[in-house]
Amino acid sequence: MEPYIHTVQYYETDRMGITHHSNYIRWMEEARVVLLSEIGWPLEKLEEIGLGIPTVSVDCKYKQTTTFADRVAVTAKLVKWGGVRMTLAYEMRKEDGTLACTANSEHCFLDREGRIVRLQRDYPDFYQAFIGLLQEQDT
Amino acid sequence: MEPYIHTVQYYETDRMGITHHSNYIRWMEEARVVLLSEIGWPLEKLEEIGLGIPTVSVDCKYKQTTTFADRVAVTAKLVKWGGVRMTLAYEMRKEDGTLACTANSEHCFLDREGRIVRLQRDYPDFYQAFIGLLQEQDT
Amino acid sequence: MEPYIHTVQYYETDRMGITHHSNYIRWMEEARVVLLSEIGWPLEKLEEIGLGIPTVSVDCKYKQTTTFADRVAVTAKLVKWGGVRMTLAYEMRKEDGTLACTANSEHCFLDREGRIVRLQRDYPDFYQAFIGLLQEQDT
Amino acid sequence: MEPYIHTVQYYETDRMGITHHSNYIRWMEEARVVLLSEIGWPLEKLEEIGLGIPTVSVDCKYKQTTTFADRVAVTAKLVKWGGVRMTLAYEMRKEDGTLACTANSEHCFLDREGRIVRLQRDYPDFYQAFIGLLQEQDT
Repeated sequence: MEPYIHTVQYYETDRMGITHHSNYIRWMEEARVVLLSEIGWPLEKLEEIGLGIPTVSVDCKYKQTTTFADRVAVTAKLVKWGGVRMTLAYEMRKEDGTLACTANSEHCFLDREGRIVRLQRDYPDFYQAFIGLLQEQDT
Repeated sequence: MEPYIHTVQYYETDRMGITHHSNYIRWMEEARVVLLSEIGWPLEKLEEIGLGIPTVSVDCKYKQTTTFADRVAVTAKLVKWGGVRMTLAYEMRKEDGTLACTANSEHCFLDREGRIVRLQRDYPDFYQAFIGLLQEQDT
Repeated sequence: MEPYIHTVQYYETDRMGITHHSNYIRWMEEARVVLLSEIGWPLEKLEEIGLGIPTVSVDCKYKQTTTFADRVAVTAKLVKWGGVRMTLAYEMRKEDGTLACTANSEHCFLDREGRIVRLQRDYPDFYQAFIGLLQEQDT
Repeated sequence: MEPYIHTVQYYETDRMGITHHSNYIRWMEEARVVLLSEIGWPLEKLEEIGLGIPTVSVDCKYKQTTTFADRVAVTAKLVKWGGVRMTLAYEMRKEDGTLACTANSEHCFLDREGRIVRLQRDYPDFYQAFIGLLQEQDT
């Protein structure tokens, strides 16, 4: 899949003159949302059928600063699939290819009552789409 | 009532070195939320009984810049009460008394189905608290 | 010019289930930044030559709510040009054409020392690009 | 030291009804800024003497959700001091004592030209304040 492009907004910079570090956590979500759409399960549809995907943990290593008007390419990859949790890994690169940051996020799946959902049992189609993603990336 | 104090956060500044102008709209909400608590009707309780207070319009005039670590005093005043809409006026001052911005916001009241609520008829106690606020400020 | 498209992010929604009203102020900036690029004077270049464009005032009327994943078309138009200030008007529409909000912002031009800049005298080329914009829109 | 209290704002919630996870990264900064003030070296003064403290990495584990109007107690502790980097650890607790999240952030010190600063050599007083913090916390 093509990386997702986020253009840094003026309101995302801080008075050091660079992108505030908290925004990268938001760009991870932006890329994750696009990934879900690309495998045919957009988050807004998942929510309609009662499925939420809260974030369980994040980590982010800042390698190079970015700033206003930079076009940052964000790749999101499914790297781990436990029965009830998944881990995504992200890379963000500037237009010249420099690595701006690497990051990970972990998520689970919840139903409307906040109970953990086992995708394989409860949403086998969605599960297959994810598993396909893991295999496709391996090759 | 005492003005609400907002301390400007680093992440609220932009690369001009000043507070990004969009944040003042958020501080208006912060002061509004405190005002509702002070009259005994905190927004979280209003939501519990099914009442939402969406924003219908805002305007904001920026007079002086603020920046990181500034303590900004925000006063929120109920200035107009129509049957179904209210207008609040805000003043934000820096610690030396300089006026940083003046602003207004307009709101209505909605029930869980998104229908306009007439406070005087449906929530007379909450209505009285507001009317008291209008009178108190007049004197 | 084509309207600028902003896709509503999950982090831009609030617990009413809709886009938080403060974000529209940021989308105005996004569209303004694109407009400057389209007339050949991107904000990052303007800052390089020492020119800042702070926001003097904003107002925004919320007509219809938007929410996560909505694609909002934002048009920004130069509607007024005084010697040292300009006013832009914005319209934001949902994909079905519904008007989500109308807004205005007023800006001045400052040099590195924070002094007001008269574009016509100090940056005649940039001034011409703006004036062209006014005329083009009139027709 | 007393924990820093952050009251969750309405604009920090998302349409899952909870605080958006990106905001915790910002509260870490808020608590860090207070810590620097408490040891007598507020960030705004450090910046005046030419010292910046960019964030090199963050990680955050979300244990329990929080939402609008929650008062979250954030403790920030210096846990590691290398010659040019420091690590802070954070705990965020809800009013009933429940752990909402644990987190870490790593920072370095830069001068105005973006060069790494060795605190012990270049800012011995500031260095002593930090070392004092490490010892105080140990006891």
